[in-house]
Amino acid sequence: MEIQLWREILDPYGLAVNELVVKFNHIIEQYKHVGAYSPIEQVTGRVKTISSILEKSQKKNIDLKNFEDKIEDIAGIRIICQFVEDIYKVVDIIKKRSDMRIKSEKDYIDNMKKSGYRSYHITVYYNVETLQGTRELQVEIQIRTLAMNFWATIEHSLQYKYKQNMPEHIRERLSSAAEAILILDREMSVVRDEIMDAQNSFTIKANI
Amino acid sequence: MEIQLWREILDPYGLAVNELVVKFNHIIEQYKHVGAYSPIEQVTGRVKTISSILEKSQKKNIDLKNFEDKIEDIAGIRIICQFVEDIYKVVDIIKKRSDMRIKSEKDYIDNMKKSGYRSYHITVYYNVETLQGTRELQVEIQIRTLAMNFWATIEHSLQYKYKQNMPEHIRERLSSAAEAILILDREMSVVRDEIMDAQNSFTIKANI
Amino acid sequence: MEIQLWREILDPYGLAVNELVVKFNHIIEQYKHVGAYSPIEQVTGRVKTISSILEKSQKKNIDLKNFEDKIEDIAGIRIICQFVEDIYKVVDIIKKRSDMRIKSEKDYIDNMKKSGYRSYHITVYYNVETLQGTRELQVEIQIRTLAMNFWATIEHSLQYKYKQNMPEHIRERLSSAAEAILILDREMSVVRDEIMDAQNSFTIKANI
Amino acid sequence: MEIQLWREILDPYGLAVNELVVKFNHIIEQYKHVGAYSPIEQVTGRVKTISSILEKSQKKNIDLKNFEDKIEDIAGIRIICQFVEDIYKVVDIIKKRSDMRIKSEKDYIDNMKKSGYRSYHITVYYNVETLQGTRELQVEIQIRTLAMNFWATIEHSLQYKYKQNMPEHIRERLSSAAEAILILDREMSVVRDEIMDAQNSFTIKANI
Repeated sequence: MEIQLWREILDPYGLAVNELVVKFNHIIEQYKHVGAYSPIEQVTGRVKTISSILEKSQKKNIDLKNFEDKIEDIAGIRIICQFVEDIYKVVDIIKKRSDMRIKSEKDYIDNMKKSGYRSYHITVYYNVETLQGTRELQVEIQIRTLAMNFWATIEHSLQYKYKQNMPEHIRERLSSAAEAILILDREMSVVRDEIMDAQNSFTIKANI
Repeated sequence: MEIQLWREILDPYGLAVNELVVKFNHIIEQYKHVGAYSPIEQVTGRVKTISSILEKSQKKNIDLKNFEDKIEDIAGIRIICQFVEDIYKVVDIIKKRSDMRIKSEKDYIDNMKKSGYRSYHITVYYNVETLQGTRELQVEIQIRTLAMNFWATIEHSLQYKYKQNMPEHIRERLSSAAEAILILDREMSVVRDEIMDAQNSFTIKANI
Repeated sequence: MEIQLWREILDPYGLAVNELVVKFNHIIEQYKHVGAYSPIEQVTGRVKTISSILEKSQKKNIDLKNFEDKIEDIAGIRIICQFVEDIYKVVDIIKKRSDMRIKSEKDYIDNMKKSGYRSYHITVYYNVETLQGTRELQVEIQIRTLAMNFWATIEHSLQYKYKQNMPEHIRERLSSAAEAILILDREMSVVRDEIMDAQNSFTIKANI
Repeated sequence: MEIQLWREILDPYGLAVNELVVKFNHIIEQYKHVGAYSPIEQVTGRVKTISSILEKSQKKNIDLKNFEDKIEDIAGIRIICQFVEDIYKVVDIIKKRSDMRIKSEKDYIDNMKKSGYRSYHITVYYNVETLQGTRELQVEIQIRTLAMNFWATIEHSLQYKYKQNMPEHIRERLSSAAEAILILDREMSVVRDEIMDAQNSFTIKANI
C-alpha cells in the first residue's frame, strides 16, 4: 500500500482525534467556568504511525485487509488525571455521553498488569463526517494519573528497545518505580478532599 | 445577569464553535490529502461578545429570557472561499452532513443587500455534549469569497462607527469598492478552471 | 543530500520563522491593548520546501554548496495589511527594531512588476540560538494588502502551472484583476482615516 | 492602577513568555531532528496574574512603583525533564545562550526546601522589542522532573488554601509523597542510560 493511500485511510482517524481532544479539553473548561475542580488534568491524542500499524499487524498476525477492525487504537486519546479517584469519575462522564458508544473496557488499575502497567482503557465507536459520508470509527481512550503516565512512558521506550528481552536488572528497577508510584498515588488520595477544596478556591481566584 | 452566569450560558456555544472549526478545517485537509482543489480556503469562528448580545437584544427588542432562541448568531462560523462558485459547493457539502440540521438559509450573493453586502448565510441546529447532557444549539455559518470578506470587514467597522448616520461620501466609496469587488470576483470566475487545475498540481507537489 | 541532512540544515530557519511570527503577531496585540488601530492585520510564515529549493537552485544556477547565501527566502514571513498606507508604516516599524538588520529592500508597490505583482519585500539578517551556537540567517519579509495577497496567491498557482508559457487570455484576466485590485485599494485609502477611527472604537468596545 | 494600565505593563512580559516557549520547544525539535534524546520533555509559560502580583507585593512589602524590579517571576517559564541529570544539562544549555543573561540561580535540588520542594531556578535578563523600543525584562525559569512538578503543583494548591496554617496531617502526607518522589527519581536515574538509548531508537523510528 503506498503512502498516498495510507494518508487517505488514516485521514478520518485524524479528524476523530482532533474532535475528541477539543471535546475533552472543553470538559476542563466547563469545570473551570463554574469554579469547580476538574477530574481531567490534561488531554492528548495521536493517530498511530504507519510503521506502528505495520509492526502490530505483523506481530498479531492481522491481515492488512481488515486492520481497521482489528487494531482498536489507530485513533488514541490519553486523559491524565491528578488522582486515582478522578479516573473513575472520567469513566462515568464518558459513559453518559451520547456522541460515543462503548465497545469494551479494561480496568488495569484494579488489575495491574504483571509489568506494573496501570491505566483504564475504553474502546468506543465514534462517528465522523467525511466527504464520502458518515464513518463509524474505533477510538481507544486511556485514562491514567500523572504518575502512572510517567511510568508508562518510560516503560514503553524500554519495551521498544528490548522487545521480548528486557534485562532482569532493568525489569527490577521498573518494578520498584511502579511501587513508588503506587505509594505516591495512595498518599495523594488520602488528602484528595483537601486538595480538591484547595484547587477550587485556587481556580476561582485565578479567574478574577 | 452577572458575568459568571453569562460565562456558563455561553460556554456550550464556545464548544460548538471549536468543534465546527476543527470539522471545516478538516475538509480542507481531506481535499489536500487526495491532491484536489479545496473549495474552502479558510475557516474562522467566534462567540458573540456579551456586549454585542446586549446591544442586539435592545435594538431588536428581544427579551433576555429567550435570547438564545432569538439571536441566531451567538455561535458564528465564517468560511472563506477563493471563487464565487466554491460558495455553492460548500453549501452542498453542508447540506449533506448528518451532524447538523438546516434551520434557514439566505443567499445574499444572488440577492445583494442594498449596502453592497454579499454573503451566503445558513443557520443550523448543532448538538454538543455538556456535563448536563446533550444541548441543541443554533449556529450561523457565513460563506463568502476572500474579496467579499474584505469588503464586509471594512463595512462592519464603519457601520459600527456611524450607526444609522453614515456620511454620504463614505457610503459612495463603499459602493464603488463593492463594485470593484464584483468585477474582481467575475474576472476570477472566468479562469477558475485553469486555476483549479493549477492549484491541484501545486498542492500535489507541495505534498512531496 | 539526504532528507536527514536537509532537516538539520532547515531546522534553524524553522525556528526563525516561529520566532518572527510570534513577534509580529505581538505587534497586533500591542496595538489592541492600547485600543489603537493595528497596521498589521495578519502574519504567516513558512520555510521553503526542499523541492522548491532544488527547483530555484536549478533555475538560477545556484551551487547547492552555498544555497543558504544565495536563496534569500528560505525563511519567509508574510505580513498582511488592510491599507496601502499601512505597508509603509510596517516598513518603518521593522527598520526601528534592534533584533534584525536590513540587507536589502524592494518596493514593488510603487514599482509594480510587469505581471501586475505588487508587494514590499525586505530581506533581513536575524540571529537564532542553536545547540551549536548563534546563527545569523536571512529572512525575507513580504508586506502586502489583503487585496494584493489575493491576487498574488492566484498568480502564483498559475505561474506554477504554466511556467514560462501562460496563455494570453489568462494573462489578460490576471491583468484586469490586478487593475480591479488597484482601484479597490485606492477607494479604500481615501476613507482610511474614517475606517481607522471606526476600527479603533470597535476594538476598544470589543475589549470590554 | 486600572486594568488598562496593567495590560500595557504586562504586555511585554507576555511577549517574552511566548518567545521563550517557542525557543525552548525548538530545542526539543532540534534533538528530535538528529534522532537524539532530548533533556527537555515539556515547556510551559505564564505571566503572573494581576491578583498574584498584588498579593505578593503586599506580603513582601513591595512598593508598586518598582514591582517590576522586585518581583522576578512576572514572566515564568517551566521546563520539565524526565531525569534529574537532565536538569543540569538544561542549565548548561541556558548558560551557553547569548540571548539571555543570568541574574541569579538557586539549586533547590541539591538543597531541598524544608517543605520538600525541589526545583532549579534561574532568573535571567531577556530583551524584547516593543513599539517603544527595546526592553530588558526579568524572567524566572524553573527546571524540574515530571515527578517534582507533580508534587509542586499539589503543594502549591495546598499552600494557597491554608496559607501559613497547613494542618499537621496534611504536611505529613506531603512529606511522604516527597519521599516517594525522591525514590522514584533515584530509581529512574539508575537506568537513565538504558532509557536514553531506548528513547533514541524510539525517536528515530517515529520519524520514519
